[in-house]
Amino acid sequence: MKVNGQHFRTIWFDESDQSVKAIDQTRLPHFFEVITLDSLDAVCHAIASMQVRGAPLIGAAAAFGMYLALREGHHVPAEAGARLVATRPTAVNLAWAVDRVLNSVAGTTDPDTAMHQALAVARAICDEDVANCTDIGRHGVDLIRQLADAGKGPVNILTHCNAGWLATVDRGTALAPVYQAWEEGIDVHVWVDETRPRNQGASLTAWELLQQGIPHTVISDNTGGHLMQAGRVDLCLVGSDRTSFKGNVCNKIGTYLKALAAFDNDVPFYAAVPVSSIDWHSDDIPIEERDGGEITAIQGLNTKGELDTVTLTPPGSRAVNIAFDVTPARLVTGIITEKGLFSADEAGLAALKSSI
Amino acid sequence: MKVNGQHFRTIWFDESDQSVKAIDQTRLPHFFEVITLDSLDAVCHAIASMQVRGAPLIGAAAAFGMYLALREGHHVPAEAGARLVATRPTAVNLAWAVDRVLNSVAGTTDPDTAMHQALAVARAICDEDVANCTDIGRHGVDLIRQLADAGKGPVNILTHCNAGWLATVDRGTALAPVYQAWEEGIDVHVWVDETRPRNQGASLTAWELLQQGIPHTVISDNTGGHLMQAGRVDLCLVGSDRTSFKGNVCNKIGTYLKALAAFDNDVPFYAAVPVSSIDWHSDDIPIEERDGGEITAIQGLNTKGELDTVTLTPPGSRAVNIAFDVTPARLVTGIITEKGLFSADEAGLAALKSSI
Repeated sequence: MKVNGQHFRTIWFDESDQSVKAIDQTRLPHFFEVITLDSLDAVCHAIASMQVRGAPLIGAAAAFGMYLALREGHHVPAEAGARLVATRPTAVNLAWAVDRVLNSVAGTTDPDTAMHQALAVARAICDEDVANCTDIGRHGVDLIRQLADAGKGPVNILTHCNAGWLATVDRGTALAPVYQAWEEGIDVHVWVDETRPRNQGASLTAWELLQQGIPHTVISDNTGGHLMQAGRVDLCLVGSDRTSFKGNVCNKIGTYLKALAAFDNDVPFYAAVPVSSIDWHSDDIPIEERDGGEITAIQGLNTKGELDTVTLTPPGSRAVNIAFDVTPARLVTGIITEKGLFSADEAGLAALKSSI
Repeated sequence: MKVNGQHFRTIWFDESDQSVKAIDQTRLPHFFEVITLDSLDAVCHAIASMQVRGAPLIGAAAAFGMYLALREGHHVPAEAGARLVATRPTAVNLAWAVDRVLNSVAGTTDPDTAMHQALAVARAICDEDVANCTDIGRHGVDLIRQLADAGKGPVNILTHCNAGWLATVDRGTALAPVYQAWEEGIDVHVWVDETRPRNQGASLTAWELLQQGIPHTVISDNTGGHLMQAGRVDLCLVGSDRTSFKGNVCNKIGTYLKALAAFDNDVPFYAAVPVSSIDWHSDDIPIEERDGGEITAIQGLNTKGELDTVTLTPPGSRAVNIAFDVTPARLVTGIITEKGLFSADEAGLAALKSSI
């Protein structure tokens, strides 16, 4: 999508200097900066520190990490893969991307060939992600168009966290239908949950919508329920870090609360998920717990125009920081994938699986 | 309650210099500072800027504001009252306290007598508030004791916003049962919703629990649903700025989302409300909308130890800041008042009314 009018992906291979480049998402929305990822360590750090984040994007980053590991001369790719997988526990794409590279180099003995194979897989993952997100947008826009045709104008869409193009390689998952709608001339407005503690909504979703010129309003995470009671939300669209074969949707902490409110107020609630983020084997989803410091302090731009961190709690008060929750399938109206719309239950997911 | 081991109320009349004093809650948890309220203007500013906040406390502050207006020589008390009532629209205590002073001075022609009557009413409101909150604690502790007796240890209580002693003159509403339990030696632990945008949980509830030595953990507002799914919450206790005669509970924005999660997970959900905050006449509750700047920026302590405000959103993204929501009575297990526990429905509220 566009940044100051110029097209960018979130991560890419730069032919000119044979480097992997990515947008540093810890500096947004205040500073737009591109970082160079030149080693396995750099990729592990970028994923763990959330310079790159979002299930599809960390999959792509991990694939590039495997390439860089081979380029650096790591002789046991599986060890490099294990390090990458350990950086974030919840998203299933990470292991999926690492496995895909490992499989591609499994029979290759020449290090240089393996390295080039890994790079080719990483680039393919990126291109496929863009195609998949575009298809998610193409399927999901039908829901928005139906609301617009029914006289809703603008169509008010609530989203939680960032499942936009910054969470993927391009286009996004939950926001892909919004971009598609906007490009088709449908009048939309997005309610952006700020998404504490890391504020991916206020800092990333708001920024990327602003860059594309799409009307939006930032709200505290507490607000969506009231807006739904007041009839001011027509559709909820969220992403998912891992969706189980039973249709349970694991996404950023707080998603469950919005799904409850949507159910209570008859607002359709959809998760937009690439097939790569579905767990076909297990319904037991590990939930990442992050440092409490992300609750007790927050980063923003001070009056001098510098990034600064301020403390919010009294010293002595501890905080617990659980990063994800699971929305039960019974609260999810449907799952939007690159293969189409499916019901959020075992039958729906089975139908999706047979369509792959 | 105690601050650094010394007993304080949130607002009081200082005999030594005949002044009204209050704790400045906009400086907490970082700085404990007492301000002097010496005029109607000062009280209006203190309420509007939330130096004093919480439905019971702003009622008490407004009564002192009426006293100060008369002391300053305002000849039309009703005009002073109208100015006070206009500072915050949602809490019903504000008008209730102003009306009480107006009624007390209605037949008084001597300005000096009227002034002393107003002061006496303000002080009586404070003393009654402390007694009422103590009684709320005495009734509410039964719920906690039952959970402790059933083998829950510690009893995990989730609260939203600040309905502790800082929201009242002393003891609190939602936290009064917690203080009572703690004093009776019951093992409790409080989950403190940070309560964006103004973070009354992270800054006030955490601070006041810390001062009394009560175990607590600050969480983002998104977290309570997951904790309830995981069986880590035994009881939800919240305050209320206005409860209608039908049992609908208006409280800080986001309360409705926690009530939905409590209902979905069979966690008891109680609102602790003084009788003065009940609207006996109407179920139509005005919802305050505050400045969007409370969403787009946040105050905290910078690394230099100074209060600082940092911007969270990109310039150009607008924010909407709705301060309260209404939790439907069907989601509320019961109402704790100074008169005892009542069901959250028209019959329960009618029973409460007949007990007054």
